[in-house]
Amino acid sequence: MRFEVLGNDARTRARRGRLHLAHGTVETPVFMPVGTQATVKGMTTEQLQSLSVQILLCNSYHLMLRPGPETVAKLGGLHGFMKWDRPILTDSGGYQVFSLNKFRKVSDDGVTFQSHLDGTTYALTPENSMDLQVALGADIIMPLDDCLAYPATPEAAALSMRRSMDWAGRCSKRFRELMPEGQSLFGIVQGGVYPDLRKESAGRLVEIGFPGYAIGGLAVGEPNTEMYEVIEQVEPSLPEDRPRYLMGVGTPEDLVECVGRGVDMFDCVMPTRHARNGWLFTADGHIVIKHAEYKADERPIDEACRCPVCAKHSRAYLRHLFMAGEILASVLNTIHNLYFYLDTMERIRQFIEFRRFDELLAQVRKRAIRRT
Amino acid sequence: MRFEVLGNDARTRARRGRLHLAHGTVETPVFMPVGTQATVKGMTTEQLQSLSVQILLCNSYHLMLRPGPETVAKLGGLHGFMKWDRPILTDSGGYQVFSLNKFRKVSDDGVTFQSHLDGTTYALTPENSMDLQVALGADIIMPLDDCLAYPATPEAAALSMRRSMDWAGRCSKRFRELMPEGQSLFGIVQGGVYPDLRKESAGRLVEIGFPGYAIGGLAVGEPNTEMYEVIEQVEPSLPEDRPRYLMGVGTPEDLVECVGRGVDMFDCVMPTRHARNGWLFTADGHIVIKHAEYKADERPIDEACRCPVCAKHSRAYLRHLFMAGEILASVLNTIHNLYFYLDTMERIRQFIEFRRFDELLAQVRKRAIRRT
Repeated sequence: MRFEVLGNDARTRARRGRLHLAHGTVETPVFMPVGTQATVKGMTTEQLQSLSVQILLCNSYHLMLRPGPETVAKLGGLHGFMKWDRPILTDSGGYQVFSLNKFRKVSDDGVTFQSHLDGTTYALTPENSMDLQVALGADIIMPLDDCLAYPATPEAAALSMRRSMDWAGRCSKRFRELMPEGQSLFGIVQGGVYPDLRKESAGRLVEIGFPGYAIGGLAVGEPNTEMYEVIEQVEPSLPEDRPRYLMGVGTPEDLVECVGRGVDMFDCVMPTRHARNGWLFTADGHIVIKHAEYKADERPIDEACRCPVCAKHSRAYLRHLFMAGEILASVLNTIHNLYFYLDTMERIRQFIEFRRFDELLAQVRKRAIRRT
Repeated sequence: MRFEVLGNDARTRARRGRLHLAHGTVETPVFMPVGTQATVKGMTTEQLQSLSVQILLCNSYHLMLRPGPETVAKLGGLHGFMKWDRPILTDSGGYQVFSLNKFRKVSDDGVTFQSHLDGTTYALTPENSMDLQVALGADIIMPLDDCLAYPATPEAAALSMRRSMDWAGRCSKRFRELMPEGQSLFGIVQGGVYPDLRKESAGRLVEIGFPGYAIGGLAVGEPNTEMYEVIEQVEPSLPEDRPRYLMGVGTPEDLVECVGRGVDMFDCVMPTRHARNGWLFTADGHIVIKHAEYKADERPIDEACRCPVCAKHSRAYLRHLFMAGEILASVLNTIHNLYFYLDTMERIRQFIEFRRFDELLAQVRKRAIRRT
């Protein structure tokens, strides 16, 4: 893996970069659509390619339970299994164990939990999370971490962060033993909303040494402003020459705000999940397609949008599909929302290239105020 | 509308034809995928076009209830509403009233029923079923008919058939009053499994005069052999120069058998519904994709198939998508099954062109025996 910083913005921390991975080159800042179970829900790989998706995220947790790492490995890893030949990132599963399992048990060694599908007991350790992700074969893999509930006391946040840092060291060790070809392991900064803990965490990760650094434990319920502050506090501790990945974020406005604070990579279920719920992004905010006002509305979702759905379909038809519970509602809505996100990233990259990212930030903030 | 018989097979009743409709030309024999609610479940119109779908069937019943004919008409009829620019056929809704409504009341005037969605009472008459289908704007529309349960006594079948023939006359009258541009009304032969009744029905329809004739009331539970016999009995009563449409049929074998008995047009939910249930057609019968034997099977659904799904995806991946309840399972399975049906029709047309359709019939029968 190689990361180039192509250029920095004039008045913000935004930077334009290029990430060279085993399955291709990724222009950053980049948004990674989420393909939880080795599929971005409702999308064929051809549709994802025509949307210019550069890199996907898949969830190790779900794939560990079904179809299992052996099956994926036998079919040639995730790339062969889902027939996606561009880069993939897998998370460690730590977050899903935290969010989907009531009966998990965390110790210093790792976490045991029961499958949300059939109750089978599984154990995830830093070491076997590396084995799992090496079997899945993504270009970028993530260390197992201990996920913290929000809000958390400084004591709880410190304990959890230090455990995660120990695990990061064990992941790194196991990863170096395995030496998987074409894969890179990132580190994840933890520490809740506490600047000292975040700084300590970043320091420990940099000491271990990773080719990229994620900021974890955000977008878990804290106000946006608090999230932005944490990024501002963490950013100076992260090496300039390594990509920074903000996990699980966020709204289109979040993307712009966080790029301005130095973030290079994002993933979020928001565009795809909201699409299936009929929440569609537009330049002026969003529309909820089920609303009766769209029953006979001949206009596209967003008159300013150049996506294939807006080029063709009316709100009336999309509302009908949604009300009728049709699969095509999910498909078309997902195409639109992903296009919106990827187009936002494209504009972000262009504004940085012109070293005028502050203008995009100002536009986005003005529009947000106009809507309130 | 204009129908040409391009050629007849040498040793069967099969014929190769061409149907000129307002929205394009249809090569017959043809299979019409079902787009119940103005969408073939899971398919974009681009995907349908790339599968070479020539003509779709939509259900008036469902569209009457939701979004309603006014909405569809305002958006430019079904073609404008769903952005499908090739031909469409709508049924009258009579069959859905029969199959989806426990509390329907049929009289000589028409049928009243409660919406299966919200209980609202609706009335369908021969006249307003024409108004409805003219609002929807399909190239081919169908008269309201009285649907008969199977089995039925000769008396019940006679009553129902004669009522349907009265309605066909009223539909024809209303249709001629409306004179909708670019639309054609077919007749539907009824009469259950009784040759005399079928003959009487065909005679009455021919007397009224339609540009095409459907055979209704089949594929409702009778054995295949009985269905084939009815077609053989009806066929001589239908004008040679008009297309014949067998409603709601059937398996790939049924298509071949019925083409050999003179049928030109088919529609059926089987390829699309079976796809969503994981039942996938192959040259050697079918596979049920959820079976454990496919868990790590690297082969495509059908090694002889040239569809885009078989060109790319393994049974293992398709099984995973199905087991995980993923939308993409429905999408990919539907592409495959529709390709299989449309490819079967393509082969049917080729064998007729070579005047050797009996050879295809023999192949299909031999394969069916080999499987049992």
